[in-house]
Amino acid sequence: MAGARPGGEGFSLSEPEIIRRYFLDRASGGDDVIVGIGDDGAILRPPEHADLVVSVDMLVAEVHFGREASAEDIGYKALAVNLSDLAAMGAEPAWATLALALPAADEGWLDGFSRGFLELARRHGVKLVGGDLTRGPLAIAVGVYGFVPRGTGLRRTGARPGDLVYVTGTLGDAALGLLISQGRAETEEIFWDHLNARLYRPAPRIAEGLALRGRASSAIDLSDGLVSDLGHLLAASGAGATIDIDSLPLSPAVQAVGDARTRFELALAGGDDYELCFTLAPGSHITLESTSAHCIGRIEEQAGLRFVRADGTRFVPGSAGYRHF
Amino acid sequence: MAGARPGGEGFSLSEPEIIRRYFLDRASGGDDVIVGIGDDGAILRPPEHADLVVSVDMLVAEVHFGREASAEDIGYKALAVNLSDLAAMGAEPAWATLALALPAADEGWLDGFSRGFLELARRHGVKLVGGDLTRGPLAIAVGVYGFVPRGTGLRRTGARPGDLVYVTGTLGDAALGLLISQGRAETEEIFWDHLNARLYRPAPRIAEGLALRGRASSAIDLSDGLVSDLGHLLAASGAGATIDIDSLPLSPAVQAVGDARTRFELALAGGDDYELCFTLAPGSHITLESTSAHCIGRIEEQAGLRFVRADGTRFVPGSAGYRHF
Repeated sequence: MAGARPGGEGFSLSEPEIIRRYFLDRASGGDDVIVGIGDDGAILRPPEHADLVVSVDMLVAEVHFGREASAEDIGYKALAVNLSDLAAMGAEPAWATLALALPAADEGWLDGFSRGFLELARRHGVKLVGGDLTRGPLAIAVGVYGFVPRGTGLRRTGARPGDLVYVTGTLGDAALGLLISQGRAETEEIFWDHLNARLYRPAPRIAEGLALRGRASSAIDLSDGLVSDLGHLLAASGAGATIDIDSLPLSPAVQAVGDARTRFELALAGGDDYELCFTLAPGSHITLESTSAHCIGRIEEQAGLRFVRADGTRFVPGSAGYRHF
Repeated sequence: MAGARPGGEGFSLSEPEIIRRYFLDRASGGDDVIVGIGDDGAILRPPEHADLVVSVDMLVAEVHFGREASAEDIGYKALAVNLSDLAAMGAEPAWATLALALPAADEGWLDGFSRGFLELARRHGVKLVGGDLTRGPLAIAVGVYGFVPRGTGLRRTGARPGDLVYVTGTLGDAALGLLISQGRAETEEIFWDHLNARLYRPAPRIAEGLALRGRASSAIDLSDGLVSDLGHLLAASGAGATIDIDSLPLSPAVQAVGDARTRFELALAGGDDYELCFTLAPGSHITLESTSAHCIGRIEEQAGLRFVRADGTRFVPGSAGYRHF
């Protein structure tokens, strides 16, 4: 770990003690982890004939989560958004690393954070193999490591004209949940649990990514919204697409939003859903077990992203997803 | 990459444009990088019959570097401290990832940072394979990935009573450089370049780590100071040590410090030197090419760290290295 300058000491636990109490004792080892947390680095044994898939994310307060988010939800989501990237590559997750900057060694916060993080890790067989902890404004950097058989990793680059565009699950739920948590929208109480779960506990589509391997021509996960993320996929593939917005899969909660334009904007520009968007050559079929996938449009030679209603009229979205800067 | 909440937009470059301009166009690919920056994750091909060594660090302003540090120095050092961890494991570096939180998309800062980071990366054949960029208080999370032949990674756990304790290079230079940069100490102008280089441009001891593989019984890198880091090694090995403080290797700049106690404190408790501390069974020999290694003491059964002068009298250090919390 990096050296640090003196100043600001006075917390009751040292870094090694915090890591031991909240992460090491709760994390599980395995045959593929030769050395885990507690040395200068981790020593890990990759499977033979596999490609390693790596994704890293930085999450900061007020940008990726608000004051209302619990430590447990933040811990869960910090890992979930990274596992979603592995899902989009078709990778089977193996390991994770966690680097934290915290204003103070708040044991209540650390306890909740590690519970949320490690609950999701266990669900997907992910072992926490390394970490770093320092004083500073709250920042969370997670790395995830998974494997695909050599040469089978899914990419953004393979969409071809004629391919059909699919999304898993439903769109716009997390964005609606965020609006409601901010008091900027209202909904019936019956939808609260669903929307909270979608906003704070997104389910990374790992099983779906594995099912797409060797079948999908391209894939990406939906973190910034369909318009933005599908736009990245199209740019990487050198193609365009027309999306039928009446075929976008919407949950009952989003369907209950009265205004049609608001519904479409939630589904098209709302981030944080962590569904997969992928393309299949015409005539291809896949079977997904836990989640359905809906065909929402078609890849075309002409660059750009176009939207049509079921009656054939064009639709122009009002915003184009989130810009990080 | 993770989704982010709206608000605070208005910078002139989008995240993908920033990554392309300052990192992608300047980073180099290779046969082992199937997919680099620009997809949901990187797809990498590990060598056969090798163990993967991973280290991650989080660096934040005011804790790991002061206001006087240039963007280029920060970029260099962010990678250097991580490569030093790989060196301590005996690993040959291969790849790095970088996740950044920045208050604003300051192009001058990004330009300097990426130059410093990539200059050191090139020197060690490290390819930047992934990244994330978000708005937030300055935080830098670097991950490095290297390889050792299976089962040969160096660890903190193998020191045995009778083993001799060695350090590479010299001790206390970075701490003296920091005191001077803060106006808390003075030195002759002839030493300025050396001390600045040691503080802002530490050389990760990669070649030395490779030479130690299969020879050293244990190893650690010196980031928080000898007392603190050797203490970690001893605790992990279940042993103690006596260090002869008159044999600590000191540069001419540290030797020129008038007060003997201050010299010893710099060498014992000063962090940020990024030298290696390692142990060898008695009778073992190693040859280091670019850096010398000095024997400074011996591993003992009795737990704890003891210090003696050349005349046999005991020495008690005044501080015990840096506590992160």
